[in-house]
Amino acid sequence: MIKAGIIGATGYAGGELVRLLLGHKEVEIRWFGSRSYIDKKYAEVYQNMFELVDATCMDDNIEELAKQVDVIFTATPQGYLASVLTEDILKQTKVIDLSADYRIKDVATYEEWYKIEHKSPQFIEEAVYGLCEINRDKVNADTRLIANPGCYTTCSILTAYPLVKEGLIDPSTLIIDAKSGTSGAGRGAKVNNLYCEVNENMKAYGVATHRHTPEIEEQLGYAAGKEITVTFTPHLAPMNRGILATEYASLVKKEDGSYPTEEEIRAVYKKYYDKEKFVRVLDAGVCPETKWVEGSNYVDVNFAVDKRNGRVIMMGALDNIVKGAAGQAVQNMNLMFGFKESEGLELVPMFP
Amino acid sequence: MIKAGIIGATGYAGGELVRLLLGHKEVEIRWFGSRSYIDKKYAEVYQNMFELVDATCMDDNIEELAKQVDVIFTATPQGYLASVLTEDILKQTKVIDLSADYRIKDVATYEEWYKIEHKSPQFIEEAVYGLCEINRDKVNADTRLIANPGCYTTCSILTAYPLVKEGLIDPSTLIIDAKSGTSGAGRGAKVNNLYCEVNENMKAYGVATHRHTPEIEEQLGYAAGKEITVTFTPHLAPMNRGILATEYASLVKKEDGSYPTEEEIRAVYKKYYDKEKFVRVLDAGVCPETKWVEGSNYVDVNFAVDKRNGRVIMMGALDNIVKGAAGQAVQNMNLMFGFKESEGLELVPMFP
Amino acid sequence: MIKAGIIGATGYAGGELVRLLLGHKEVEIRWFGSRSYIDKKYAEVYQNMFELVDATCMDDNIEELAKQVDVIFTATPQGYLASVLTEDILKQTKVIDLSADYRIKDVATYEEWYKIEHKSPQFIEEAVYGLCEINRDKVNADTRLIANPGCYTTCSILTAYPLVKEGLIDPSTLIIDAKSGTSGAGRGAKVNNLYCEVNENMKAYGVATHRHTPEIEEQLGYAAGKEITVTFTPHLAPMNRGILATEYASLVKKEDGSYPTEEEIRAVYKKYYDKEKFVRVLDAGVCPETKWVEGSNYVDVNFAVDKRNGRVIMMGALDNIVKGAAGQAVQNMNLMFGFKESEGLELVPMFP
Amino acid sequence: MIKAGIIGATGYAGGELVRLLLGHKEVEIRWFGSRSYIDKKYAEVYQNMFELVDATCMDDNIEELAKQVDVIFTATPQGYLASVLTEDILKQTKVIDLSADYRIKDVATYEEWYKIEHKSPQFIEEAVYGLCEINRDKVNADTRLIANPGCYTTCSILTAYPLVKEGLIDPSTLIIDAKSGTSGAGRGAKVNNLYCEVNENMKAYGVATHRHTPEIEEQLGYAAGKEITVTFTPHLAPMNRGILATEYASLVKKEDGSYPTEEEIRAVYKKYYDKEKFVRVLDAGVCPETKWVEGSNYVDVNFAVDKRNGRVIMMGALDNIVKGAAGQAVQNMNLMFGFKESEGLELVPMFP
Repeated sequence: MIKAGIIGATGYAGGELVRLLLGHKEVEIRWFGSRSYIDKKYAEVYQNMFELVDATCMDDNIEELAKQVDVIFTATPQGYLASVLTEDILKQTKVIDLSADYRIKDVATYEEWYKIEHKSPQFIEEAVYGLCEINRDKVNADTRLIANPGCYTTCSILTAYPLVKEGLIDPSTLIIDAKSGTSGAGRGAKVNNLYCEVNENMKAYGVATHRHTPEIEEQLGYAAGKEITVTFTPHLAPMNRGILATEYASLVKKEDGSYPTEEEIRAVYKKYYDKEKFVRVLDAGVCPETKWVEGSNYVDVNFAVDKRNGRVIMMGALDNIVKGAAGQAVQNMNLMFGFKESEGLELVPMFP
Repeated sequence: MIKAGIIGATGYAGGELVRLLLGHKEVEIRWFGSRSYIDKKYAEVYQNMFELVDATCMDDNIEELAKQVDVIFTATPQGYLASVLTEDILKQTKVIDLSADYRIKDVATYEEWYKIEHKSPQFIEEAVYGLCEINRDKVNADTRLIANPGCYTTCSILTAYPLVKEGLIDPSTLIIDAKSGTSGAGRGAKVNNLYCEVNENMKAYGVATHRHTPEIEEQLGYAAGKEITVTFTPHLAPMNRGILATEYASLVKKEDGSYPTEEEIRAVYKKYYDKEKFVRVLDAGVCPETKWVEGSNYVDVNFAVDKRNGRVIMMGALDNIVKGAAGQAVQNMNLMFGFKESEGLELVPMFP
Repeated sequence: MIKAGIIGATGYAGGELVRLLLGHKEVEIRWFGSRSYIDKKYAEVYQNMFELVDATCMDDNIEELAKQVDVIFTATPQGYLASVLTEDILKQTKVIDLSADYRIKDVATYEEWYKIEHKSPQFIEEAVYGLCEINRDKVNADTRLIANPGCYTTCSILTAYPLVKEGLIDPSTLIIDAKSGTSGAGRGAKVNNLYCEVNENMKAYGVATHRHTPEIEEQLGYAAGKEITVTFTPHLAPMNRGILATEYASLVKKEDGSYPTEEEIRAVYKKYYDKEKFVRVLDAGVCPETKWVEGSNYVDVNFAVDKRNGRVIMMGALDNIVKGAAGQAVQNMNLMFGFKESEGLELVPMFP
Repeated sequence: MIKAGIIGATGYAGGELVRLLLGHKEVEIRWFGSRSYIDKKYAEVYQNMFELVDATCMDDNIEELAKQVDVIFTATPQGYLASVLTEDILKQTKVIDLSADYRIKDVATYEEWYKIEHKSPQFIEEAVYGLCEINRDKVNADTRLIANPGCYTTCSILTAYPLVKEGLIDPSTLIIDAKSGTSGAGRGAKVNNLYCEVNENMKAYGVATHRHTPEIEEQLGYAAGKEITVTFTPHLAPMNRGILATEYASLVKKEDGSYPTEEEIRAVYKKYYDKEKFVRVLDAGVCPETKWVEGSNYVDVNFAVDKRNGRVIMMGALDNIVKGAAGQAVQNMNLMFGFKESEGLELVPMFP
């Protein structure tokens, strides 16, 4: 039984961490950090936790927390962890950061897209990008700091990864059109996120400027073996949870001048994901739907080929606050502490 | 490890039974019965079960099924079980019926409200009304047949039960205004249940004629120690899951002519529910919300007093396909087989 | 062509006033007042008005405004108008107040329920409660100040009015269970009104304490010819628009000891509403649905009798920001200026 | 005052035609055709029309209807009109077809994508593709048969048209990712369209095979001056109304090797749409949202440039049953009969 602390426990990702860790056999939550609700009962902030969590919200004293727990989850705004993390903390505890602070290896890129100065670039190199299905070999007992991937990025990368890695598509043609539920916008009180503004509405936002873009490019660039530039467009959809990524790319012709067949493409997906518990390659002709993964750690992927123009349309669906945030964080924790990778995550998707 | 069969596995309650039983340590599902989808892969009907359920839908041969499993769940239309149940079946297996066939002890009442002839009234007497919090002492290894309560009734009864039982309210004044998510209407293809008809809409239906009325009256009548008549109005709400019951009744004055105080009322709720894991009496001033119990087996209850006219407003919220159907069925199964009552049901409500 | 000014033009009721007045032949909007958005283009606050409204938001200088326009609509927080209204203003222009400031004739009652001091009680007597179907004879060219009814109250009163007025029900037994869309909560940035908090959720709020209670009691008290006390419970529903009121009361027995028949009850509804354009008494057996009045000024009403206990269940549905706010305000304006009562309000409900 | 008949009046597009025509000064509806509801009161099928429409549903006898009315709207399944249309009918009345029967000039293409035989190809040549903003000069008093454009196609075409027409983008790179509300799926009772299946869900469907693809290609091909092939992916979104199209294409470099600037692109949009009442080119940086056009005949368009890879992201939003169906049909009727083009269509979008 290890002890965990959460900084930012009252945001949606923080709340989901609590939900998942309550069902985890090897972890006890010892610290519910929330700058906004200090001294308030956690179950008053999230009434679903009534009689399940008795604790009171604490401040975000990470130095003190580091002494008390084996792992700290930071579900905090960009820049927070970078501004407080120290070698001392990392010597005492492991840190899994759900913010973007250590996801991007190039500080200049981070500062350009996030418009903030990085306060502790010395830890970027060490941080492991915790996309378990791809970086599993780097997440282990020696790992001190995890940069937990973003929700859009997890979905976007896993959907295209096998085809990029195996060179079946030209990554310079990659276009990602992603639709997200509103929990991704957080629990802050903003007019834009009011029920009446989101309900019965669809819109794009952050077009050509969204901050998950360089993260996708960096990771898919590793797969491609070269730098790539993608077009990424996020959309806000009237639902609580879920991301659906529809991705478009031109297939690369084989040596004989023909395009890869559907069977060949499917074989590549199977090669990478057949043994992955949390990535499900759906049967031919079945499109991923966000509802089918709701509440679970699954990513459902599939594709179709537009034969008339040699494009492949790839599709991926996940629950943005499970596999796109808290679930993946727990998966990383499991790997770091040698627990069964799926411990606490064997959640059957809820339908309807 | 016991073996279970489900008849009606492809309705919403049947699907939820599958979700819950997949997470239950002591049960293995051996039969996914579905008249509509015979020979189709179950996971093609409910894609959330992809890679989790490999089985194919079977017909609803209950006699054959009785030989193969320890318990049969029937999540079937009214009248089905009554038309096929035999002594032979009950000698071989236990049956938990999610339909209304054996809920009402008086056959004439059943036939009047349901407009169908009861084909096996000889089993009504034996059937136990499986509202665990109230009838727990009757649900045990000897129980062969459970009449699993309806969704509206579970919520309506548990919300008012302590005050009726202890005589704090006049049951003849009881008015129940219930709001349900649309999964309660089932998965049948009907125009009324189309997205565009339900979304952005609220309506009452079955006013003064809904079939859950006599079930509520019978059970609360037992608590009151006399026959009672209530007014029950169900409403359809634009959400997938959840029932909220708002119940109104006149408080009975105490001997000194005063009304019971809020503290006295609260003490009565606590008396009945303090040790109940699945009934949560919320803190004073906190109104139950369906979202706080979504996906879980909890019922949240609370009340307020309208001092100006001596009425109490009682409120209860549950997930209609968990505590209102499949969750309660599993709870009954646990009691019948001597498992921990909460096994497979320790689900943290999902928010948002 | 008269000139109108709106103070509070950027709330939801204010926005709806703009929508309605843009389609009104006799009115030109000259002032879009909004304390929060001064100097911002109105169409940037409500992009649906792009190319339809060219104006910029103004401050809320009501004295200046009174000189420029024939009628002022105040869609402002409680207490605002009471704190700025003067005889001078009323001499220059008509005022239609969508807040509660002049709805309640008894100042003490207002101050008790609203928890604010009333700053201009001298105008309360003069203010006309603008529920057109009931007070039409008091809304005319001489009227200077209209207290435009609340959304819940309009729905609650019109649903029960004929039966109270004609003595068919005992008003002391009246219980109102109302369900409202979220636009009723306004456009303020509050966590409680975020999409993820409201969506897939139902809850009661303000139980036994909601401020529309005394307004309902006062108006229905006039109809009953005596003071009455009702139980009123509002609920928040996951939809943008619409209020559904389900109301319960005991029927009063006739001299022969029998209850009024359905035909007799229907005849009373017809007596009051047959000539009312905006109140539709639905056919027997048809329950009002909020979707059927969406975007329009209609109120749909109907009832059912629970013969087993002598209760009538009355139901009413309206669009909370049309007939429950802006539409009714325009209806009052039409009466005050001698326009056709339905001018600008002949909107066909939108479905789906 | 002309007389109109609607065949298919009880589908969602048919219902919207009724809503719009009730507010049209020059038209009287004389025939509410509905094969499914013959002899039923129209207002019982659409209760929003209670007291607004007194008529009873008629069968779909188009020959008889042609004698009685000046214009027939067919909001019918594919193949219906093609199977019944005759020269005789066209000699007596004008026909505006909301199905796809006459939209595609090449019969073979129609039959390939729609999988049905075309029964009256002789009228295809004559039929005018009624996308008013582009084909206005062909819609006039002489026009007998209008092929009213599809919902996805109207949105997809108008969003990209100026850039294709002026050669600013390479049409062979065009990718259209469209998200539609569920009313587009019609009012048929199908499991896939049930509330609980659509709500809280996003999915693509008809990937690389949707039947609006050839219609988009044909029309944009005319603009491009050559045959083009696009990738079109429709998605189902949990909302009643609205289509949002997000479209991607590579910009064509100018002679000096640079890409067109944002100003140059905007100027092209303005050139085509500045005088179009129903197409609104939003201000720079503002993304179209479906809610801002709900209930109206507007199309909101805008774009952003991804400078890093020379792509333009075009966005368009409309209400699928107004501008995407019934509104456009009325707009065509107005042009055919010489009414003001916007008569009956000056609807302010409803928000929220």
